[in-house]
Amino acid sequence: MDIEKANAEACERMMESRPIVVGLGKAIDVIPGMREDLLLHAGPPITWERASGPMRGAITGALIFEGKAKDEESARKLVESGEITLEPCHHHQAAGPMAGVICPSMSVYILEDKTHDHKTFSNLNEGYGKVLRYGAYSEEVLERLRWMEEVMAPVLGEALASSDGVDIRALLSEALHMGDEGHNRNKAGSVLFTKNLAPHIVRATKDREVAAEIIKQLGDNALAVLNPVMAACKAMADAAHGVEGSTIVTVMARNGTDFGIRISGLGDRWFTAPVAVPKGLYFPGFTEEDSSGDIGDSTITETAGIGGFAMAAAPAIVTFVSGTPKDAMNATLEMYEICFAEHKYFTMPPLDFRGTPTGIDIRKVVETGITPRVNTGIAHKEAGVGQVGAGLVRPPMEMFEQALVAYAEKHGI
Amino acid sequence: MDIEKANAEACERMMESRPIVVGLGKAIDVIPGMREDLLLHAGPPITWERASGPMRGAITGALIFEGKAKDEESARKLVESGEITLEPCHHHQAAGPMAGVICPSMSVYILEDKTHDHKTFSNLNEGYGKVLRYGAYSEEVLERLRWMEEVMAPVLGEALASSDGVDIRALLSEALHMGDEGHNRNKAGSVLFTKNLAPHIVRATKDREVAAEIIKQLGDNALAVLNPVMAACKAMADAAHGVEGSTIVTVMARNGTDFGIRISGLGDRWFTAPVAVPKGLYFPGFTEEDSSGDIGDSTITETAGIGGFAMAAAPAIVTFVSGTPKDAMNATLEMYEICFAEHKYFTMPPLDFRGTPTGIDIRKVVETGITPRVNTGIAHKEAGVGQVGAGLVRPPMEMFEQALVAYAEKHGI
Repeated sequence: MDIEKANAEACERMMESRPIVVGLGKAIDVIPGMREDLLLHAGPPITWERASGPMRGAITGALIFEGKAKDEESARKLVESGEITLEPCHHHQAAGPMAGVICPSMSVYILEDKTHDHKTFSNLNEGYGKVLRYGAYSEEVLERLRWMEEVMAPVLGEALASSDGVDIRALLSEALHMGDEGHNRNKAGSVLFTKNLAPHIVRATKDREVAAEIIKQLGDNALAVLNPVMAACKAMADAAHGVEGSTIVTVMARNGTDFGIRISGLGDRWFTAPVAVPKGLYFPGFTEEDSSGDIGDSTITETAGIGGFAMAAAPAIVTFVSGTPKDAMNATLEMYEICFAEHKYFTMPPLDFRGTPTGIDIRKVVETGITPRVNTGIAHKEAGVGQVGAGLVRPPMEMFEQALVAYAEKHGI
Repeated sequence: MDIEKANAEACERMMESRPIVVGLGKAIDVIPGMREDLLLHAGPPITWERASGPMRGAITGALIFEGKAKDEESARKLVESGEITLEPCHHHQAAGPMAGVICPSMSVYILEDKTHDHKTFSNLNEGYGKVLRYGAYSEEVLERLRWMEEVMAPVLGEALASSDGVDIRALLSEALHMGDEGHNRNKAGSVLFTKNLAPHIVRATKDREVAAEIIKQLGDNALAVLNPVMAACKAMADAAHGVEGSTIVTVMARNGTDFGIRISGLGDRWFTAPVAVPKGLYFPGFTEEDSSGDIGDSTITETAGIGGFAMAAAPAIVTFVSGTPKDAMNATLEMYEICFAEHKYFTMPPLDFRGTPTGIDIRKVVETGITPRVNTGIAHKEAGVGQVGAGLVRPPMEMFEQALVAYAEKHGI
């Protein structure tokens, strides 16, 4: 077993993945294996009983949006009775931020990896504050979702279809030179995404007011591009998955209760452990006591070599996640210790255009005792509240240890 | 004479200036002292005889645009006969990039300094390549100018008028956290400017194709915001001008032949010396031998504490102007040696959010022997060609020495 060679192949495939946003479609129509009685969610598999507050809130909101429930209690019944089933986004070539709930009638971005002929998906970003992905489901939240679905999605879909698509790897390369790290700071990426699509949005509708509103919604939402970026990182990680003998991590994801990882050479098995609570800066009126456990598929960004791993490119992020610009630099430098490669296309000007640390090697994580650094939003622990801050978190070491043991067992090492 | 106090006041006024882009208007209608027989240009006063190639090219193009000349020869005659007069933009509350030629029927951005109730102006940015400001005046150049004047300007003017205006100081504060330095790298600022105005552009015209084209032209031009930024820096510098006893530089400008500076406490007198040739990276097919002397009013950015002075915030710029990210950092650190203040609103994440070096003090320049660092585009030395590269340049020391002597004479020191 030539592990180095396997890992080199996995990382090469990851970096050569070139995912393009080509359009939008309803989840039920475009996501493989999507069903009317299915909700997708962030992280490894979860039940209602073990689900965190924000996950329950998002499930409730999604079922109200689908017209299948009217409150948390009726949502609980549907899920516990098995009338509605829950499956991870990652089982369906998708990734969703925070609770990451994608329901059948929600529109999703469709990305095509032009190198590996593979599709991935993510939903539309709702913006900040009281939003479904943070577990809020008030009428205000649902109204925004309906506007996005009924007004925004048809025009945005038409705009994307009439464009040449948006090359997310190229966009990220540019955004990393503009102070983004691609996970918690997507300010440059979001305005680049908006300016690329704005002329197509204008042409896609005769209603000028609608075009103006959509452009404003995208342009003023500094996370507008997060979801396409996550789907792009999912494509990159998928490309690296399934290389026999590889010890590279191809999924890191949290559902608010468990953190889960998957390894390129270890098939579809999840290695899980209880999530930690992020450390960071809280919005006025909230403290760490209000925080949910770590949640969301957005750790797919770190899996693909950006986010917390590219913080050296984004010193201004510390105003949002805490720490100093030097801490941001150190975060990236530390991640080189546990990664197999340096990215060919994601470079960081403050480090003399060095490539971002890419391809987490579980051997290195266990050997060095260094776990990945993750930038994240922080959700309130109760259903219905929403975001309360942003910060930094590390996944539990025991998952990497479990995975390494499984790898050793598989290969009789 | 309390020089420190005078300089503190000048720098305070510079930093508290808050210029907002409020609209567009024809130069003849809105620029104070503009006349039908007048062309404004970059730098200190110049004659046709002493004008550089790109300056002659831009004057020719502007006179063709105005319908007053048909070629370089007829342009020369108009200027040499005195039928057309040349005056610096800086004599008319304006600033123009490179040759900086503003003619009567050209539309200009109108900025209002809300703190000091003062207006400044700059023309629209044409984009890259063969453009008037670099001395090109082919039919292609004139056609773009006509499109900008006839199609773009009316819609952009309406969009600006219907918006709350664009606060350029706030935009620059944000852009400096996104890898811009505000002079030669305005990538973030230009997309922020575009995304702010795009919804208003959509509402300002019934012609969707026109709206789409204007948004694309602005969004794809990484220098779209340079001209409003220059007018904003002109407002900041004007606010600092005229403080009795102050040794702060309030204008740095080049016409391709002479570099000129003005000093806050020394009235409207220009101190001039021959320009240097920039060092930098040339486009394929061109070398330093093709380069014009240093040209343009864009050094107003360094005068106001950004551009070359803020290079630490923009390490990616070295791919465009040459050098390494460390050189960029050192450029900023060196400029602290010759500046009186650190900016209150322009901060740089890589330097732990330290304010940019602001307010060049001629005493410090002469004492330390350190001249300001300037980022600049490089024009071909012949009329009609255009941009051939980008790089770095320093103003001649003798202007600062002349100014200090004049200051000493005035105050009998």
